[in-house]
Amino acid sequence: MRVLLVVAHPEPQSFNGAMRDVAVATLASAGHAVDVHDLYASAFNPVAGPGDVTQRADPQKFDLGREQFHASANGLLAGDIRTEIERLRAADLLILQFPLWWYSVPAILKGWIDRVFAYGSIYAPGKTWDNGMMRGKRAMLAITTSAPAETFLPDGKNGDLERMLWPLHAGVFGVCGYQVLPPFVAHAVAYITPEARARILADYAGRLRGVLEDKPLYFHPLEDYGPDRRLRPDVEPRTPAQHRGPRRHW
Amino acid sequence: MRVLLVVAHPEPQSFNGAMRDVAVATLASAGHAVDVHDLYASAFNPVAGPGDVTQRADPQKFDLGREQFHASANGLLAGDIRTEIERLRAADLLILQFPLWWYSVPAILKGWIDRVFAYGSIYAPGKTWDNGMMRGKRAMLAITTSAPAETFLPDGKNGDLERMLWPLHAGVFGVCGYQVLPPFVAHAVAYITPEARARILADYAGRLRGVLEDKPLYFHPLEDYGPDRRLRPDVEPRTPAQHRGPRRHW
Repeated sequence: MRVLLVVAHPEPQSFNGAMRDVAVATLASAGHAVDVHDLYASAFNPVAGPGDVTQRADPQKFDLGREQFHASANGLLAGDIRTEIERLRAADLLILQFPLWWYSVPAILKGWIDRVFAYGSIYAPGKTWDNGMMRGKRAMLAITTSAPAETFLPDGKNGDLERMLWPLHAGVFGVCGYQVLPPFVAHAVAYITPEARARILADYAGRLRGVLEDKPLYFHPLEDYGPDRRLRPDVEPRTPAQHRGPRRHW
Repeated sequence: MRVLLVVAHPEPQSFNGAMRDVAVATLASAGHAVDVHDLYASAFNPVAGPGDVTQRADPQKFDLGREQFHASANGLLAGDIRTEIERLRAADLLILQFPLWWYSVPAILKGWIDRVFAYGSIYAPGKTWDNGMMRGKRAMLAITTSAPAETFLPDGKNGDLERMLWPLHAGVFGVCGYQVLPPFVAHAVAYITPEARARILADYAGRLRGVLEDKPLYFHPLEDYGPDRRLRPDVEPRTPAQHRGPRRHW
């Protein structure tokens, strides 16, 4: 198996750095080929814009989706993006590893997604979810947090982690057709003992050794939706962000 | 009232550009002072890292939270961050305006949050939620999407928009003590008629004219939590990401 490990942390000596080293050693010793992209080390440009294409579909007005689609069809994506897309396509498993900042990914990783998951290359009209362009591949998040685990429980102060991660699990991985593996989460790493940190790293190694047996998270297949793009009345919502209402906030 | 409008879109002639112009005109004509920060136009650096402080608490190992806290206490934040914090503190209402990319903000806006919402300046230990440092201020999202409204309904293909926005509403605004106003959402703007777009802009102007009367979204006050940082057993969860379980995904 080929693994692409994308890491987003400003400090190589951090716990994220230790997780990266554990992942590389564990996956390599299991016979997998590991491609590591440290976004901070490569100073990856995270700002999507006109520079993402070498020639514009519309030189007057820049629309990211339209330009990505045109450039994908015509070999006009910028070189750094083309390189990343090749790495993505070569990988059977994608791991995004990062510290949870503001309930989400660091900006440098968000920009890697904005630019590399290009419309027409990684997803396309009608080629989403279980018909997605990345189907057959697996993806998972490996996250560190700065708060105790209980704050991410359904009744915790930060809210249910699985709802918090919906934009990444569904919005990025699921939409593109990835089989999404449960996240590996290391809580409050700055505030725990060296022994607890060592235990987390051992757990992570164990998790990665068994990664081929992991059961993917459930997302509704396209056939569950009616022509109105809503779950058919006979389909029971089974994901963290889908339900029959009412809403709570507005 | 003073308003800080932060816009993140690569194309000034886009619908986001039109929304910005409507916001500026509407708020100004209502007598408010509007400070606009177009992140693309200012080429804002979105990558949090060692450059965010002028002197390190720990020169060996970079921890963003620790360095932000130390720099906030000692006047050591980088100049571009200090400027943004002053703009935030001066504003009674903060509007973040952006196209929804991957169920979230564009990277340049995520990085503005990562760097400017500095630990020790915008939030601090014990100074969160209803005791947050930004309490008394309002904040709202103004969003464009590329999909029809029904896909963001509770049973829509993208999942319930209010759960999708939890990381921004709660994780960014709520944690810091802002009163969070309901979002303004313009759906599928690339695919609708000029008349429909004009109607959305008129709706947005109307919304902004009444913004002082908007009822904020509900978040649980700190007193609702026990020492285990979970909702006390007698408190009924009332937000989009808090519930009594079970989880759906893992």
